[in-house]
Amino acid sequence: MDKDTKDIGEVVLSPPTDRPDPQPAWRVRLLDTTAGRAVTVAVIMLITLVGAGRLAVAGGTTSPPAERAVEAAAASAERPAGCVTPDRRLQLYAVELPRDPVTNQIRLGYGLTPQTASYPGPTMEMIEGECLAITLHNQVPAATLEQLRTDAAHPVGVSLHVHGVKYTQMSDGTVHSNSFVPPGGSRTYIWFAKPRTATSQGTAGYWWYHDHVVGGPHGTQGLRSGLFGGLVVRRQGDLRPHRTYVTAFGDRQTINLRRSAEADTCDPVNPQPGPTCLVAKIGERVEFIVIGIGDDMHTFHVHGHSWADTRTGMVEGGNKALADSIPVIDNKTLGPGDSFGVQFVAGDSVGPGHWMLHCHMQFHSDLGMSTTLHVLDENGQMPPHAGGHHPAVPAQGAAAPAGAHTNHR
Amino acid sequence: MDKDTKDIGEVVLSPPTDRPDPQPAWRVRLLDTTAGRAVTVAVIMLITLVGAGRLAVAGGTTSPPAERAVEAAAASAERPAGCVTPDRRLQLYAVELPRDPVTNQIRLGYGLTPQTASYPGPTMEMIEGECLAITLHNQVPAATLEQLRTDAAHPVGVSLHVHGVKYTQMSDGTVHSNSFVPPGGSRTYIWFAKPRTATSQGTAGYWWYHDHVVGGPHGTQGLRSGLFGGLVVRRQGDLRPHRTYVTAFGDRQTINLRRSAEADTCDPVNPQPGPTCLVAKIGERVEFIVIGIGDDMHTFHVHGHSWADTRTGMVEGGNKALADSIPVIDNKTLGPGDSFGVQFVAGDSVGPGHWMLHCHMQFHSDLGMSTTLHVLDENGQMPPHAGGHHPAVPAQGAAAPAGAHTNHR
Amino acid sequence: MDKDTKDIGEVVLSPPTDRPDPQPAWRVRLLDTTAGRAVTVAVIMLITLVGAGRLAVAGGTTSPPAERAVEAAAASAERPAGCVTPDRRLQLYAVELPRDPVTNQIRLGYGLTPQTASYPGPTMEMIEGECLAITLHNQVPAATLEQLRTDAAHPVGVSLHVHGVKYTQMSDGTVHSNSFVPPGGSRTYIWFAKPRTATSQGTAGYWWYHDHVVGGPHGTQGLRSGLFGGLVVRRQGDLRPHRTYVTAFGDRQTINLRRSAEADTCDPVNPQPGPTCLVAKIGERVEFIVIGIGDDMHTFHVHGHSWADTRTGMVEGGNKALADSIPVIDNKTLGPGDSFGVQFVAGDSVGPGHWMLHCHMQFHSDLGMSTTLHVLDENGQMPPHAGGHHPAVPAQGAAAPAGAHTNHR
Repeated sequence: MDKDTKDIGEVVLSPPTDRPDPQPAWRVRLLDTTAGRAVTVAVIMLITLVGAGRLAVAGGTTSPPAERAVEAAAASAERPAGCVTPDRRLQLYAVELPRDPVTNQIRLGYGLTPQTASYPGPTMEMIEGECLAITLHNQVPAATLEQLRTDAAHPVGVSLHVHGVKYTQMSDGTVHSNSFVPPGGSRTYIWFAKPRTATSQGTAGYWWYHDHVVGGPHGTQGLRSGLFGGLVVRRQGDLRPHRTYVTAFGDRQTINLRRSAEADTCDPVNPQPGPTCLVAKIGERVEFIVIGIGDDMHTFHVHGHSWADTRTGMVEGGNKALADSIPVIDNKTLGPGDSFGVQFVAGDSVGPGHWMLHCHMQFHSDLGMSTTLHVLDENGQMPPHAGGHHPAVPAQGAAAPAGAHTNHR
Repeated sequence: MDKDTKDIGEVVLSPPTDRPDPQPAWRVRLLDTTAGRAVTVAVIMLITLVGAGRLAVAGGTTSPPAERAVEAAAASAERPAGCVTPDRRLQLYAVELPRDPVTNQIRLGYGLTPQTASYPGPTMEMIEGECLAITLHNQVPAATLEQLRTDAAHPVGVSLHVHGVKYTQMSDGTVHSNSFVPPGGSRTYIWFAKPRTATSQGTAGYWWYHDHVVGGPHGTQGLRSGLFGGLVVRRQGDLRPHRTYVTAFGDRQTINLRRSAEADTCDPVNPQPGPTCLVAKIGERVEFIVIGIGDDMHTFHVHGHSWADTRTGMVEGGNKALADSIPVIDNKTLGPGDSFGVQFVAGDSVGPGHWMLHCHMQFHSDLGMSTTLHVLDENGQMPPHAGGHHPAVPAQGAAAPAGAHTNHR
Repeated sequence: MDKDTKDIGEVVLSPPTDRPDPQPAWRVRLLDTTAGRAVTVAVIMLITLVGAGRLAVAGGTTSPPAERAVEAAAASAERPAGCVTPDRRLQLYAVELPRDPVTNQIRLGYGLTPQTASYPGPTMEMIEGECLAITLHNQVPAATLEQLRTDAAHPVGVSLHVHGVKYTQMSDGTVHSNSFVPPGGSRTYIWFAKPRTATSQGTAGYWWYHDHVVGGPHGTQGLRSGLFGGLVVRRQGDLRPHRTYVTAFGDRQTINLRRSAEADTCDPVNPQPGPTCLVAKIGERVEFIVIGIGDDMHTFHVHGHSWADTRTGMVEGGNKALADSIPVIDNKTLGPGDSFGVQFVAGDSVGPGHWMLHCHMQFHSDLGMSTTLHVLDENGQMPPHAGGHHPAVPAQGAAAPAGAHTNHR
């Protein structure tokens, strides 16, 4: 278990503190200082007028009382209760990527930089109690978004809608709440990983985020093009895995929008962990964020490995009644919008090998909805008895970099 | 939590007592007093002869021993073990309603009176230990039922089949057990909410009831027309919500058989809670009985809110291992026949607003399988920043009546 | 609960001991005694050369050190960690059966003898800690397997792939791991029911096994033809039911590949428990291993009975928070590859009768995806009030043989 404070990329894994935040980026300072509801309306109007773009940054460290009341009203509409100030900020870019090499479909991606955008987008990690501000920059060409639109009355933009954590209507990422980003614009979304308390069930879990606007009011074309990613919210004390992979099961028999050989592009000699290369050394704790997207039902199955059907994928502690009650499974149904976590120790009891990971709907797997978890031995090698018959798998996989982590941050 | 005895409509929320019941309505007094199995047969024959109609009411307060043996035999066939006498009685009417305004389909409904029949039917509430006798009156015209029948050999009638609670074959509501109601007839169904004990898992849960006869042996046309409703069985000590809504996810992208604007008919000025108007004030505990009907798979998703994947939708108590094990979710797959409960505090952490509630299958939501949970502020108002762009939603919703409860009883 | 050591057929229900095993059947003795990895390669080559057939049996009781190292390397590839020696061995035969009487489809089956092969195959039972060696003999004619193949490049053979328990790549039953059996060949698969410990979640659960090779790399044609069966792994202390039935819900609205009258062939006078005759006496504990196969989603529903959504189908012990949290259900969604267990006491509270068991997808049940659990009274009789209207059900069912158990072993 990793209890240290870690800063990997932009993720701070320590519980957030009430650190001073003199110049918060998401506060709106208003010229009109009339108190009360009319002003709140004005705030909204202002935001509407700037085209749902990035919230204006207000400087200054102190405000007169009337202004502070206005700020408070605006803030309560922007920030979920419990989030006084964001503990962390991220920039996120929505960009157009090269078209799908197989289907020639339009591909979009989220990235922490425009250059690193991918589908799925970067895996986000939060810890309960943390408040995260993400500024989304829409760099997708307007023409592309128009092409994905089926209804000319529907606005053109991208958004960020998240599952599981807390956010106000202003961070909902929907058209009706006017919380999306037109081409060239930016907007800050605030997520709060509300902690578990005596009166709150908390938000720790395996979640995901996605566009809710591209092409229609439910973001169907955004999802189909690649605008989604995984989010894991950990609870204090949760075991942190060595590797985290996102596997989004979707339409047209795809895993992360690819199928057949495209779903497993591992280099046999030097496999690099990523969305299309699931690799681990024996003994490493591997975590999957499994997401359902699109229109179809699927089932997530891994050969040789199983997990507990719990929040963490594990059964912990000495509570025998609990341990005896919880199902251990190796196949789980998921529908669109569902997300869950799977954790296990790679190769535990079963050894290294090319372990299939596929949808168990037969026509789905037959059509290529199947990939491989490559479990290497202690030396980072794939033993020869693991078979060399499988296409596109490492015969003699080199060691994966120790400590490699697929979370892109 | 409400531990008081309450009688709301016909629902008694106190645990049932062994109250004296000198003239039970569901006992059959027989003329033939021959003891043993042959007599049991006679009982059955009698019931069959009267057309599976309402059981004859027997007067009198005492019976000779032989007659009592017969009564006991008949009673054991009628009443589930543990139900000595019903604690409560309801009249339920199956009627024909105006055709669907959009599709022109036949619409049927259950109601506690013929005038208040609706689809879904009245939400039933029981408490573990309670025994409920429901007399169903079939007021649907025979011609309508014949029209819904695809096989002329199939009998014409309606029935009441329930999930989760206990009942004998005589309350199964199926054709093969001859427990349905022909046009113009009546029949008493007995449900027992068996309590949890050391040897019984109990029946507390989120259930539903439906016709099992209209159109065919599985009641497919009854379900399609509207003959279904929600049932919640509470356990002693369960938290009782401020509002209970039923959302049945069904074929042709419908919620409660409606889609698009038909699924959300809230008056923006004075929203009245009901099957097509999901509204709550911030801080109110809202409960959904989610039901799958028909042929299709769906996923139930709410924006901004989440719940624990447990019997009650909550994680309770200080059991850390348990609390840490239970998944918190905001999207759940359901197939036909499934039912589960969702509970959360409206607007908790996220504030008021027009929170979408939809199937996350993209083509389902795109075709209109989407509605809105309107969360008003403390004053029963919808703040303007919540957006006015959504069709058919209150811009300035008036306060919902305090204490309003959608359970129709 | 049955804590005694029982040997029913080939199943030993006591926890396995480290019994001496002087001539293990699954060890490979090599002529080449060069130590290290090159030799491991040779082992694999040898296995490959003999066509993935039955492992050669090596005699002798002691080996020189170098040879022992080789044996150890080979063994670790064959046996999952924790399985020192198999506790039990079974012979399993894959054979061709008469074609389906209704659809004329090819039917294959697994059997403990060629003469007793069936679909589903024999129900396997293990106890955590046990290691099982199953030698599969492929007696299906090559011509039949060729007929089921859509791709001439795909090898002809059958295999044994199992869910939930532990096995190495050599027991994976897949083409790419070369762990299948060509026509006329044999191969030993080793399954280890890893026990629950402080660091292992264990493997107790309701699982299944199936072919993964016939017709294509996912065994779609093997599954469709009948090459599957149930597996239950029990934990020490688990309650053992009186009867175990397998109900595989699959394509074309089938239960165990049959529908309508074919799914319920119970003799009304003398019902014999089996895959197409679900019968129990009131008070007997009945267990279902429910399996999803094929392409479609289904829901498993039983009338009058419910179960806890846990590993065992029960809520045990005095942990109130746990008991209150666990959902009790009577309808459960399952997708292909899913498997779960259902346990309840037949007729508990509801009495004897013809209790429907069906998929609740309406068009599935309407097309015949429905059967009956016949619950007889204490005397093994079906009371007359239970109705005689249902086709193909016992009007006066004779007593099922006491102690009958549907596990075929």
